This record gives sequence, C-alpha cells and structure tokens, in this order.
Amino acid sequence: MDLGLLLNCIVQRDVIESPTMPPLFAIHETCLYADDLAAMERFYSAVLGLRKVSEMATRGLTLRVDAKSVLLIFNPNETRQPHAQVPAHGAIGAGHCAFSIPPDSLDEWRAHLSGHNVPIERDVSWESGAISLYFRDPAGNSVELIAGELWPA
Amino acid sequence: MDLGLLLNCIVQRDVIESPTMPPLFAIHETCLYADDLAAMERFYSAVLGLRKVSEMATRGLTLRVDAKSVLLIFNPNETRQPHAQVPAHGAIGAGHCAFSIPPDSLDEWRAHLSGHNVPIERDVSWESGAISLYFRDPAGNSVELIAGELWPA
Repeated sequence: MDLGLLLNCIVQRDVIESPTMPPLFAIHETCLYADDLAAMERFYSAVLGLRKVSEMATRGLTLRVDAKSVLLIFNPNETRQPHAQVPAHGAIGAGHCAFSIPPDSLDEWRAHLSGHNVPIERDVSWESGAISLYFRDPAGNSVELIAGELWPA
Repeated sequence: MDLGLLLNCIVQRDVIESPTMPPLFAIHETCLYADDLAAMERFYSAVLGLRKVSEMATRGLTLRVDAKSVLLIFNPNETRQPHAQVPAHGAIGAGHCAFSIPPDSLDEWRAHLSGHNVPIERDVSWESGAISLYFRDPAGNSVELIAGELWPA
C-alpha cells in the first residue's frame, strides 16, 4: 500500500469500517421535559444564559446554546398527544444533560450558582482531571457543567 | 461611541446583557434512556455509526458523536437509585434528540434506514427549507435527522 492510499484510508476510517454509513455531523437538538415551561425559560435564561429563539405554543420552547445546537424544553403532557406533523414523545422523571465550560471558569460558576440560590448537588473531580458541577433545574432534571475532558476521544 | 468600542460591544453582547454570566461552550452530554442497553448499542452503532467509548457497568454507556459531544444511554432502573458519586436521574417514556446531517445526504439516509429495516415515521419539509427524518430507536425514543437550518440563530 503506498503512502497516499494509506493516508486516505486513515482519513476515511469510518467509511472503511462501515462502507454504507452516510455522514452525520453532530447532535443538534437535546431535549428536557417540564410541566412549567415559563419556570424553565426563566431558569435557563438567568442561570445558564441561554436565549429563547422559538416557541411551540404550549408544547415547548427552543433555547439556543451555540451555533450548532439547541436545547428544547417540552411539556410531555402536550407532546405525548398525537400531532399532525411530528411524532409523539415525552418522558416523565428526571432527565439529564451536560454543558461544557472552560476549566478556569469553575469558581466563577460556583459563585454564580450560589448567587442564584441554586444548590450544587455534587462537585465531582474525575480521574481524567475533569470536574463536574451538578445541580437541578426547576423540573428536577439533573444539569451538569463539565470542565475538561471527561470521556475518551 | 467610537467604532472600536462599538465593535467590542457587539462581540461581547452576552456580557453586556448579563454582566455576571460565566462562559458556557456547548452541550457536551445528551441522554436517552433504555432498559436494554445492548440493543441500543447495536442500533446506534449500526444505524447511526456512533462508536461506544465507555461503559458504566449496568448503568449505561457512552457513544461518541463528535469531538465535542457524546450521547449517553442510561438504564433508568439503575440510575434512579441513589449513587455514591453522581446524582440520581432517569426518565420513563419516549425521549427525543436530533442529529444534523448534510442536506445532500438525505436520499442516502433514507436508503440506509430502509436497508436496516428502520421505518421513517415522518419525513417533514419545514418552512425554513430544512428537512427532518424521524424514526424510533429500540426503546421507542424519537430520533431525528435534520438537514439544513431548522431554528433561528
């Protein structure tokens, strides 16, 4: 095998592993569920700085996280009903999602959460060197801020 | 206001809107729940091409999506139990998440899903020009592939 072909194989590793796999970029929508959408909007705006970019009547709302991804908050009592355009879904109980933060912002985040009377449920130092802060949103979902790399590449 | 100050204000808009907001990068972990973790691993590997990078015993597993984000699959029967290190969570019922795909891969994805006997539940053309394909994972979660821009920037 010549060097050019070898390099091509390395770059196209996924294609070789699975010749028919179409391309997939990233996670675009992450969802959490809550009965009280207004309380969620206030919390994610004031505490996490996310901006609402869309509303789906009483079904849910869309919060912009970065250029490539959004956080959707849905009322499961609404979204579990059959809908003309989109499939039904809707979970009950505490969900979970995590946001990445710069490692040098950890103390700032601890003070910020405290300033908003949001108790830090766990403050975990992982073997990888990453640190996680866990707290609850108004619906009881477990929200995590991760500083550093937690999962293998 | 001089031009330099104006540009600085535009760049630092979030800081001006909320002077005490610490920085937040992106969504790092998105979660779905399932009782049968092995079935989920097979599905997300074969159908979506995601690679398992970690296992949390019988609690869950971690699938790498891109350099910045992972999809976590948790067994809610396990994760709702009190844990020494991390907070309890775990939802019951169909969750939802969406992945972004290149617009020119839509037909390839339709054929790929069909080839894996995964029925497309809805194939939606949005007003924005984006197109969504919806299907179910083995746990009944609603999975979506989005080609194009669906939400306001």
